[in-house]
Amino acid sequence: MNSNHLKIGIAGLGTVGVGTFKLLQANSDILNQRCGRRLEVTSVSALRREKNRGIDLDGVTWFKDGVDLATKADVDIVVEVIGGADGSARKTVESALRLGRHVVTANKALLANSGVELAVMAEESGVSLSYEAAVAGGVPIIKALRESLAGNSIKRITGILNGTCNYILSTMRTTGQDFEDVLERAQALGYAEADPSFDVGGVDTAHKLAILASVAFGTAIDINAVHVEGISNISTLDIKYADEFGYRIKLLGLAERLSGESGEGIVQRVYPCLIRPEHPLATVENVFNAVVAEGDFVGKSIYEGRGAGAGPTASAIVSDIVDIALGRHAPVFGVPVRNLEVPGEVPVDQHFGEYYVRLLVVDRPGVFADIASAFRDESVSMESVLQRGRNENANVNVVIITHETHESNVVRALNRLQANESLVEPPHMMRIEKTECS
Amino acid sequence: MNSNHLKIGIAGLGTVGVGTFKLLQANSDILNQRCGRRLEVTSVSALRREKNRGIDLDGVTWFKDGVDLATKADVDIVVEVIGGADGSARKTVESALRLGRHVVTANKALLANSGVELAVMAEESGVSLSYEAAVAGGVPIIKALRESLAGNSIKRITGILNGTCNYILSTMRTTGQDFEDVLERAQALGYAEADPSFDVGGVDTAHKLAILASVAFGTAIDINAVHVEGISNISTLDIKYADEFGYRIKLLGLAERLSGESGEGIVQRVYPCLIRPEHPLATVENVFNAVVAEGDFVGKSIYEGRGAGAGPTASAIVSDIVDIALGRHAPVFGVPVRNLEVPGEVPVDQHFGEYYVRLLVVDRPGVFADIASAFRDESVSMESVLQRGRNENANVNVVIITHETHESNVVRALNRLQANESLVEPPHMMRIEKTECS
Repeated sequence: MNSNHLKIGIAGLGTVGVGTFKLLQANSDILNQRCGRRLEVTSVSALRREKNRGIDLDGVTWFKDGVDLATKADVDIVVEVIGGADGSARKTVESALRLGRHVVTANKALLANSGVELAVMAEESGVSLSYEAAVAGGVPIIKALRESLAGNSIKRITGILNGTCNYILSTMRTTGQDFEDVLERAQALGYAEADPSFDVGGVDTAHKLAILASVAFGTAIDINAVHVEGISNISTLDIKYADEFGYRIKLLGLAERLSGESGEGIVQRVYPCLIRPEHPLATVENVFNAVVAEGDFVGKSIYEGRGAGAGPTASAIVSDIVDIALGRHAPVFGVPVRNLEVPGEVPVDQHFGEYYVRLLVVDRPGVFADIASAFRDESVSMESVLQRGRNENANVNVVIITHETHESNVVRALNRLQANESLVEPPHMMRIEKTECS
Repeated sequence: MNSNHLKIGIAGLGTVGVGTFKLLQANSDILNQRCGRRLEVTSVSALRREKNRGIDLDGVTWFKDGVDLATKADVDIVVEVIGGADGSARKTVESALRLGRHVVTANKALLANSGVELAVMAEESGVSLSYEAAVAGGVPIIKALRESLAGNSIKRITGILNGTCNYILSTMRTTGQDFEDVLERAQALGYAEADPSFDVGGVDTAHKLAILASVAFGTAIDINAVHVEGISNISTLDIKYADEFGYRIKLLGLAERLSGESGEGIVQRVYPCLIRPEHPLATVENVFNAVVAEGDFVGKSIYEGRGAGAGPTASAIVSDIVDIALGRHAPVFGVPVRNLEVPGEVPVDQHFGEYYVRLLVVDRPGVFADIASAFRDESVSMESVLQRGRNENANVNVVIITHETHESNVVRALNRLQANESLVEPPHMMRIEKTECS
């Protein structure tokens, strides 16, 4: 066994930091065998030293601040689990990289916003910047894309990347409860934050998608290129109607390399959409995360597991630590930073596919003809229409599934209808996602 | 870019060898970027040089024999895709390892039978022996277990590891056709070999399971410790009855570390069994493969993809090549050979669980009482019983789902019934697999 201990500093002792500490202790025998050297947490940082976290910090150097740990502690690796795109987390990571210390982080916001700059620092210092835990927790999708699928040209990535949203949508479907009620329940269960806007607004998914797209396509991370829609407007009605048409509603992150007629560049989109039951993500329920990667040789490759929580996230962090312990190095985003491509963006109105539209209208003579005309005039052809429980002058939902068309056509058809006085509320529109790569 | 080309020799130009050659050509730009050096196939071996394989071998040195390639060719890596547990494949791999050449192989039979010896040779020479392609084709389960889940103590591995069997069972269910008819169809489609016995007999799954168990548990491969049953006795009746009780029938490979009451050691079993629709493997259909790994920190981690075919297998082979090109090394079975544990075996009759039993009996007075008594006398309690279409003195199927019990009890109950003259054929028995780890 290598007599050279690997000294680890954990910056941040929240759930994930404590989970990582516990894993390194609980499985130290296995890890020592697998690494051929001892892994040792020598330093931690956290605001309050005395807080009871259920771990024994005897013999571990304590720092109040992550930056102090990164600069002053005797460590080979800094594990950054402070969180947040800026402030202490960012300063900690930058300090560690500049001093030539490996960094393992679970911080998707930081990477999505500053990934390229940080990768440059890591390259200049010749150290690893590892982040398996930043995307989909225990699902080892970063290593899969960067190493296991390295032989492939990746065509498309589709993922359920936020457990909070997936739990809410799953529970709305199974219980018939409203978004707000289920959100409250998710908060009570610890599946959603007190301020859930990052999750339900799709921002968290966008951070993760931007990272995945960079690794999959060898492109420079650009969080601003991600089109983002959240799930707070999804009603149980939409879930029920989708179900009647044979679909599930999921919040997906989608990244695809396009060329030719449909546009040139990398699509990066986060939105709730309808998928068929045979779609590999249709059966991913509750807090589970999953990613489908489609490569030119491997075909569909699917990864599923727990996307958050102390255990799965610690598992991902420790896999990065083991790689560093064994000297297994990979370029941060799969290729050296200078080779990262800056791809074109593909605006969402160039999207081509089927659509789900729900219109709440006053049921009076001619309203359906108005709807049909608006769609016809914008060359949107309807595959199915559902309208139930007619009651003259009462409100009624008209649900339409379109044939494949350009999004710009659908938007124009809906704009025409906005002016129609029979419309009780703005139209609800969702994309229907193809199961097979185009 | 490293000016040092990586020279590759491909031993065997069947479907997989040719697929690997094509991938390395088609994606050479991406691969050169990812590896920082050029990957070049400099040599191949195959019996006949002139055969048209749709690839251009100009400038590539040709050997008739794999061993010649391994010993005489100017290569850094030997890709062994000859196949077979012995003979040319084994000699090729041994020669390459002894000469200090990295080996990448897709050969599960070879590894299952001689993995430990070969790993010793690789260690002695300080080279890699890589085999991502040997298990579940394009599903990167070896890297996942060895690296991504390295922080975990693995509790259980469950896999659909043979596409032929999964295709047959899926198709029997969806078409209602018999085993023999579907097997013929699978052969016509190229999903099954002319001699399908390795696949349908469960041996191929056993090879793969033995490899997975070694990597997951850090144990020395022992193919003889694997209990193997195939699928050729599964009838459409069983599939229909399983369906009525809410189950799917799948051929699974299962490996589990047991301690305590249920035995001490590593369970390694291959058999067709019943799983609930919510089991993560229930929706894995046709030629797809999938593996569920359960770790103490990560929880359930699921991997799915194409288990065979030129593209997925080549993708796996090239991922191993990329690791070697980048100097990313891992112990062959996750830990050095000297640390591989030799675990106890757990005989299958110690299995504890629910059972499916189908008895074809002559419908006459008292027969059901005989069955009930046999089960009662061996302390097997019945959860559900199904018997349809009673016709005195005609043959009728009695289907029983038991409560959890020891297999030895079930076996004794069925032995009691064997002697019963109402029994038209030997009893059909299958295990019902739990969705959650015990």
